[in-house]
Amino acid sequence: MKQQPDVWIREVGTRDGLQSIATIFPTAAKAEWIAREARAGIPEIEVGSFVPPKLLPQMADTKEVVAQATTIEGLHVSALVPNLRGAENAMASGVDQINYVLSVSEAHSQANVRRSVSEAIAEFGRIIEFRAAHPEYHHVRVASGVATAFGCTISGPVALDDVLRAAEQLLALGADELAVADTVGYGNPAQCRRILGAVHKLAGDIPVGAHFHDTRGLGLANVDAALEVGIRRFDSSLAGLGGCPYAPGASGNIVTEDLVFMLEAMGMRTGVDLDQLLEAREFMTTHLNGEPTHGAYAQAGPPKGFIAASQAA
Amino acid sequence: MKQQPDVWIREVGTRDGLQSIATIFPTAAKAEWIAREARAGIPEIEVGSFVPPKLLPQMADTKEVVAQATTIEGLHVSALVPNLRGAENAMASGVDQINYVLSVSEAHSQANVRRSVSEAIAEFGRIIEFRAAHPEYHHVRVASGVATAFGCTISGPVALDDVLRAAEQLLALGADELAVADTVGYGNPAQCRRILGAVHKLAGDIPVGAHFHDTRGLGLANVDAALEVGIRRFDSSLAGLGGCPYAPGASGNIVTEDLVFMLEAMGMRTGVDLDQLLEAREFMTTHLNGEPTHGAYAQAGPPKGFIAASQAA
Repeated sequence: MKQQPDVWIREVGTRDGLQSIATIFPTAAKAEWIAREARAGIPEIEVGSFVPPKLLPQMADTKEVVAQATTIEGLHVSALVPNLRGAENAMASGVDQINYVLSVSEAHSQANVRRSVSEAIAEFGRIIEFRAAHPEYHHVRVASGVATAFGCTISGPVALDDVLRAAEQLLALGADELAVADTVGYGNPAQCRRILGAVHKLAGDIPVGAHFHDTRGLGLANVDAALEVGIRRFDSSLAGLGGCPYAPGASGNIVTEDLVFMLEAMGMRTGVDLDQLLEAREFMTTHLNGEPTHGAYAQAGPPKGFIAASQAA
Repeated sequence: MKQQPDVWIREVGTRDGLQSIATIFPTAAKAEWIAREARAGIPEIEVGSFVPPKLLPQMADTKEVVAQATTIEGLHVSALVPNLRGAENAMASGVDQINYVLSVSEAHSQANVRRSVSEAIAEFGRIIEFRAAHPEYHHVRVASGVATAFGCTISGPVALDDVLRAAEQLLALGADELAVADTVGYGNPAQCRRILGAVHKLAGDIPVGAHFHDTRGLGLANVDAALEVGIRRFDSSLAGLGGCPYAPGASGNIVTEDLVFMLEAMGMRTGVDLDQLLEAREFMTTHLNGEPTHGAYAQAGPPKGFIAASQAA
């Protein structure tokens, strides 16, 4: 039987990465990318999002991608949804988990989904009710992101109280998991300890993950701080695929292979094989059309004599 | 009167950066670079090294660079020296501090300075004696790096006991400061807590700094871990100038402006003005000939509503 990893990594390049670049990956390429990362040991992949294809043509084939990904033994398949409609489609597609996104910043929530924060929380409640009303979906985990928790490009700083109030309401409605997100790469380690420590405490036994962007270079420093306050789930993107449309060359999500290297070097088992992960990276990058890739481990390789925690006895 | 910063940053791009690239900066360009970083508030700059010009032509003008740098009010001017001869030249040049380098790894010490570790420690003792014998140099601080403390490209893992024994001997001889160095970018945050925590405890009131390379992307995560165990001195390089000759495009030292941003965002005063630092970066990069630059902050800029700790009341 497969051992539970010390730290749970969710690959989001197939969603957050692809939605941020111009290139549209063929369905077969997405499927192969997912299969390779699953083979490398990545426990969960957010394979796409259920949004109107007009808004995100890159995600138009998410239903087919889910159908293929769910045939992979042992892989936890999740998809992002912005609303009840998306959640219905996601559950019908057969995902193991849906990841809703709530923006804590009023301005960002309005700009992103044209809803106030309280309306967006109510929509999450409707998703939970929908699942409750459909026994065939009772096994589907319903998680929520807590986005712009570290600040917002429109309104600037976000109050910790606003983050905690939103988290509390999502938990009260029945969220199975929260992912506190530094949507625009504003976070720093001190903030991570403060915000993630408080949400983790609030959530008790409900798992709390962190979603970091490396926009200002602090992504892995934020991971270190999050680990310190007990966070054991992280989102990341293979080769840091994504980036920020406003900052050419800037990083998007933290880099999956660098994250795995860091955790394994620190003695934390991720269950991921770095060599196979680099093979997945190599495959993925053949489908890019000039989009920049990121990541230091892929260039530098392991330290001499390095033994990953997952490989140690 | 100028306030003591919470965290002391030593710019080493003028030494570690320049010695790793092909381009030779004219003396005037080095002087202007140093003047601009000093104006931005960087408290210490390692302006060069006193090594045979045949080995490092980039450092041939270090004496002249020191002469100009020491005219800058308030700047602490240091230089690297590999041996007593270099220390004599450095002291004669008028530096405020010399930074000796001891490799903890026998193989690296032999490869780098053709001395065993114990011979290299004895050489440090001779530098301390030389200063003692020359009252005109009594004001010069004599620091030592503790290099390859996180592992060695030749012999792999380095034992913590070896690091501590070397640190203990350097302190017993009279080192005014230690800089524990991850010479080849092998370190991870768990190691940082272990190694830097132990050396810091051993050193008591003698300041201990950290010198990180970002070769595997963990540089700032290592800073976060070092801060946790009380380290308040860091080496860094403007625009991450340097890199590793064996990994094209790979980062060298951690990036000064990203480090300053992280610390200031965490509420720690560095005394450095980020805008002026970016101006220094811009000036420096005009002298490069295709060498890659690094750093996320220079691309992304500050978060909306960001107030640096040094600018807060």
